[in-house]
Amino acid sequence: MNVTQQRALDRQVMGWLDEAHTRILKRLDQHFHVSTKDGARDLVTDVDRETEQFYVGKIHEYNPHANILSEEGYGDAVSSLAGQVWFVDPIDGTMNFVTEHAEFATMLAVFEDGKPLLAWIMDVVNHEVIHGGPELGIWQNEQVLATPLNRDLNEGLMILSGYRLLRGEMALPEIARQALGFRIYGSAGISFMHVLRGQAVGYLSAMRPWDYAAGIVLAQSLQLRVGRVDGQPIDVLQSGSVVVATPSTYASIMTIEQSN
Amino acid sequence: MNVTQQRALDRQVMGWLDEAHTRILKRLDQHFHVSTKDGARDLVTDVDRETEQFYVGKIHEYNPHANILSEEGYGDAVSSLAGQVWFVDPIDGTMNFVTEHAEFATMLAVFEDGKPLLAWIMDVVNHEVIHGGPELGIWQNEQVLATPLNRDLNEGLMILSGYRLLRGEMALPEIARQALGFRIYGSAGISFMHVLRGQAVGYLSAMRPWDYAAGIVLAQSLQLRVGRVDGQPIDVLQSGSVVVATPSTYASIMTIEQSN
Repeated sequence: MNVTQQRALDRQVMGWLDEAHTRILKRLDQHFHVSTKDGARDLVTDVDRETEQFYVGKIHEYNPHANILSEEGYGDAVSSLAGQVWFVDPIDGTMNFVTEHAEFATMLAVFEDGKPLLAWIMDVVNHEVIHGGPELGIWQNEQVLATPLNRDLNEGLMILSGYRLLRGEMALPEIARQALGFRIYGSAGISFMHVLRGQAVGYLSAMRPWDYAAGIVLAQSLQLRVGRVDGQPIDVLQSGSVVVATPSTYASIMTIEQSN
Repeated sequence: MNVTQQRALDRQVMGWLDEAHTRILKRLDQHFHVSTKDGARDLVTDVDRETEQFYVGKIHEYNPHANILSEEGYGDAVSSLAGQVWFVDPIDGTMNFVTEHAEFATMLAVFEDGKPLLAWIMDVVNHEVIHGGPELGIWQNEQVLATPLNRDLNEGLMILSGYRLLRGEMALPEIARQALGFRIYGSAGISFMHVLRGQAVGYLSAMRPWDYAAGIVLAQSLQLRVGRVDGQPIDVLQSGSVVVATPSTYASIMTIEQSN
C-alpha cells in the first residue's frame, strides 16, 4: 500500500471513528449491561461487543480478505502476520468506561505482511485521535505530532499498571521510585496517548496484542523505543510485558529490569 | 452572608477563574521558570506565584479584611478561623502542569467564622469548575451536580497518593487491594473532582489545608463523607491524612485503617 493509499485509508478510518464516537457517547446515556470475564476486574459490556462488531463490519467491507485479531472474539483466529492483519480494541479501559464514563479509548492498527502500516487511538470522550504510521507521519486530529523530548526516567512521569505495582512485579516499585513521578490511569490507550504527546516519559504494563499493537506502531513512528521487559523481541501476536518510552527512559528501565 | 450574597460572590469568583484560565493557558505557551521547594518532586513555577498574587489581589479588593491561607506565601499567617478566611491553591498538581501541561487544578474556598460557605475547583485545561456550597448547592459550570451513588470500595475506583502507596503508609496497599480499581492522578483537585462527580468512590492522601479545604466543602455539600484517617476531627488549618468518600466506602476505609 503506497502513501496515497495509506492517506485514503486513514481518512476512511477517521470516518469510522467519528461514527464510533457518536455511537459510544449515545450508549453512555442509556442502560448497558456489564458482565465479568476473567475475574471481578475484567469487565465487558454490550458497548464493547457492539463497537467491535461495528469495526469488524467496516474492515470486512473495506477488505474482505483482512484477518482481524480483536478483544471480544468477533474477529478471526489469527496465527500469522501474512497478508493484511487488523488489531481491534473496541473499548480499552472498560472499568473506566463503566465507572467514570471517561478516560477510555478505542484502538485500531493495520499491518501488511508483518509491516506496521497505520494505527489509531481515540480518547473517546475528548474526541482526540492520535493516528498515522511510519510513512504517513503521526497526527493528533489534524495537527502533526512532534517527536517527544528525550527526557530520562527521573525527569518525567512514568505510567504503570496498578495491580502489578502492588504485587511488586516487573521491578515496578523500583521504576516508580526512580521516576520523577508515576501515574495509574487504567487504560492502555489513554496511557499510550500521554507518552506519544510527551506528557509522560514511558508506560509499562502486561498487555495483550490489541492493547499495544496501535500504541507501538505510533510510538516507533515518533522515534520512541518499544520492547518487552524480558529483552525478547516483540511478537505482536503474543501477550507480554511491554514498555514504551523515550530512548533515555527506555535505557534506564532496561537497566533496572536487568538488575532485577 | 445570605444566599443571595453567596450567589453574587460565586458569580464574581467564577469571573476571576475565567481570567485565571486565560492567563494560565497563555503562560503554558511561554517559557516559565521551574524550581523545587521541599525536595526534587515539590515543584513551583512563576505561574504558581503569579496566579496566587492574582487571586490574593482579587480577594483583598473584594474584602480588605479577609485572611488568606495560601500555598506560595502571598497570603497571611492565619492561626484562627475567626472572620472571613480564604484558602488558595493557585496551581494544584504543579508536576502535571510542568510535565503534562494538563491535569492540574486551581482551588479556592471561603469560610466565615469557621463555617464553610463556598468553594471552587477548576480543571484548568478543560475549563470545568465544580463550585457552590452547603446553602447554594453544587454545580459543574452551569449544571447542578447530584449526590453520587453510594457505592462501596469494591464497587468503584479509589484514588490514592502514589509515593505513600509505594511506602505502604496509611494501609493504602490494603485499600488498593479491596477496591474495584485504583488510580493515581497527581493532583488533589483533579482527584476531588472525580469523587464529586461520582467517577471514583473515594480519594485518600496526606494533604495541606489548601489541598483539601475546597474539596471538603464541596464534598460535604454533596453528602459525601470526609475525615482524617486517624479518626481525629478535621481542623482545616492543619495538614493531615484526609479521606473523602461515599458513605459506604468511607466506612470500609475506616475499618481497614482501624485494623491497621
